[in-house]
Amino acid sequence: MEIAPLKLKKDRERRLHAGHSWVFSNEVDISATPLTAFEPGQPVEIISHRGKWLGTGYVNAHSLICARLVSRDREHPLSQSLLVHRLKVALGLRERLYPTPFYRLVFGESDGLPGLIVDRYGDQVVIQITTAGMERIKNEIVAAVEKVLRPAGVLFRNDTSTRGMEGLESTIETAAGDVPEWLTLEENGTEFQISLKKGQKTGWFYDQRENRRRMLKYISGKRVLDVCSYTGSWGVAAARNGAREVHCVDLSAPALEQVGLNAERNGVADRIQVHQGEAFAVSKALRQARERFDVVLLDPPAFIKRRKDQKEGELAYRRLNQAGMQVLERDGVLVSSSCSHHMSGEKLLSRIQQGARHLERSLQLLESGQQGMDHPIHPAIPETAYLKSYFLRVLPVF
Amino acid sequence: MEIAPLKLKKDRERRLHAGHSWVFSNEVDISATPLTAFEPGQPVEIISHRGKWLGTGYVNAHSLICARLVSRDREHPLSQSLLVHRLKVALGLRERLYPTPFYRLVFGESDGLPGLIVDRYGDQVVIQITTAGMERIKNEIVAAVEKVLRPAGVLFRNDTSTRGMEGLESTIETAAGDVPEWLTLEENGTEFQISLKKGQKTGWFYDQRENRRRMLKYISGKRVLDVCSYTGSWGVAAARNGAREVHCVDLSAPALEQVGLNAERNGVADRIQVHQGEAFAVSKALRQARERFDVVLLDPPAFIKRRKDQKEGELAYRRLNQAGMQVLERDGVLVSSSCSHHMSGEKLLSRIQQGARHLERSLQLLESGQQGMDHPIHPAIPETAYLKSYFLRVLPVF
Repeated sequence: MEIAPLKLKKDRERRLHAGHSWVFSNEVDISATPLTAFEPGQPVEIISHRGKWLGTGYVNAHSLICARLVSRDREHPLSQSLLVHRLKVALGLRERLYPTPFYRLVFGESDGLPGLIVDRYGDQVVIQITTAGMERIKNEIVAAVEKVLRPAGVLFRNDTSTRGMEGLESTIETAAGDVPEWLTLEENGTEFQISLKKGQKTGWFYDQRENRRRMLKYISGKRVLDVCSYTGSWGVAAARNGAREVHCVDLSAPALEQVGLNAERNGVADRIQVHQGEAFAVSKALRQARERFDVVLLDPPAFIKRRKDQKEGELAYRRLNQAGMQVLERDGVLVSSSCSHHMSGEKLLSRIQQGARHLERSLQLLESGQQGMDHPIHPAIPETAYLKSYFLRVLPVF
Repeated sequence: MEIAPLKLKKDRERRLHAGHSWVFSNEVDISATPLTAFEPGQPVEIISHRGKWLGTGYVNAHSLICARLVSRDREHPLSQSLLVHRLKVALGLRERLYPTPFYRLVFGESDGLPGLIVDRYGDQVVIQITTAGMERIKNEIVAAVEKVLRPAGVLFRNDTSTRGMEGLESTIETAAGDVPEWLTLEENGTEFQISLKKGQKTGWFYDQRENRRRMLKYISGKRVLDVCSYTGSWGVAAARNGAREVHCVDLSAPALEQVGLNAERNGVADRIQVHQGEAFAVSKALRQARERFDVVLLDPPAFIKRRKDQKEGELAYRRLNQAGMQVLERDGVLVSSSCSHHMSGEKLLSRIQQGARHLERSLQLLESGQQGMDHPIHPAIPETAYLKSYFLRVLPVF
């Protein structure tokens, strides 16, 4: 099959050379290869200005990231057989690291499959496609997943907002087999009931698994506040692993209902209280009521989704962390996460430190976690790094 | 007791305001408070140019870091009672996190005691003093340690090269009780015989404990290469925890002799081989002999000790990591550490990525570790962060 060329402007092959896989629309030599001539998602050969073959991938004129490189091997462009190969390589890592088949199997660019997310929940598989290039071969993707994993059900969770940037519609649909309304997942010895069809993202935040495990060593016998608790992945695990008392705060009443069910399922309903409301408002009310906690967990949704939210978002992180520190005991532990790629670890830590100085506290950073091993970071693609969790001891100022 | 003032130049209180504890010699208003007027290590009150009291600390005209702030509380300057208090606060953290008394108890600035390191090995304590300010109160330090820990022996390991910058001599001496020639330490289920008096630094690298624990999940049934093995803290642990075969490389014959003894002690002598020689030379020889490993561990000494070594040091890290990747199997794991503060995590990762591109490999960063929780980082003092360990999967290029 003939693949159309996509020619870059002079010196614009550097990012690809360094190992990245993205081409931005202003880097294409549109006099040689007009972007408007391509169908969304069409396969391309990416060629440097001097005519050097760089790799094969796919294009989408509607997106700022107008092309993504998929393969640097001339013999193996994107096809069902490449999909099967990359799925097997991805599976090789996860099978070595996880005793049961519950993990993110494919994390896009980091697993050599830009625009594709595959999560595994036992015999169920959830696929999320975020680019036109992958949308175009969605049937091949399902076939490859079926071949490699033989799942009982495959669900498309194609309802992420980033699809809009590629001109793709938002849908949730069963792709193969039967997908149940609810399933049970065990994480670090705690059981949760989750919904693949209705839960946030693809049903479960596997990315925080390791950080939640780290948390366990700080909570035995302690009073814990879980802010932005969602369905209780942190809070219920804390109660199940020895916390004396856990308070979960979330804006969503249905999420807190799930906290209650998950607490019952793990036999810790008597140790968990829920507070429905906005994180800042509830924190303030707790502070004013002189409630104090040994450990405060902050795992908010991304405050910075786009560059333009940067300044306001950074301040929101500082405010939230400051509010968390204000309800901590004199010698407490703050576990502070951010899933915004645009909030670098350095910036987050600096904002927390500013808050601590303002409150006359000294900090000791004990551990720093990133997204779990099933969400590997590609060192040449900084955009694949997004999650950070800081474990901080908060003391009266030295 | 009257404490002499040390006055800063205009606007030079910013670093201290942000939470740092250092004053550089060019930041002092020497017309108001000449540095030459102070004895090395003399206590001072640090005052802003406008006369604002910032804290108490100590001074040393011989050092580029001419003063360090110890306390922001007017009522509690540096004294034996403050030492006892800070030791207890430090102990509070370690007792919560470690089941046995083997850890760094005091990590300088991060524990509010600039210039002081205290390591605990059961009933033995090792103290390292790195500033004239702490040297001046060494008897009070020993008394405070005895009061809080009641140790059987206290050793001064005052033989670090940084003491030279403060005009202090290099000595190793027993400060109290009896210090044995050898003692046994258990880490992650593996036993090691160590020498507090003759071992590197203060006898054991507690800072890598968590990273060595992380390593264990990658080595079961694998062939492992441990480069710069020293006495086998990584390699023997790998063999003890299921590695099929471990090769330890070190320049020091006595260190490799210890590897052998530690291997025997743990019943894994049959699975460990040692190679005496320089890391680059041995790696090259192994490559040429077509030896390949599933996991390569790189934990070299600091290649960048001073800023002037930056460029050469960065290249040395790249070369070492490239050499490590060259003896990896097609789907292998590289565990790459650096203890140079001047080699930031970002720089190290970027150098490893450059090496990977050169060798036509793709990397997946699975985990990133820092120094252990008994070496907390002070977020306002970047100099307290020095150790990073990257766990990378190395694959044929995507």
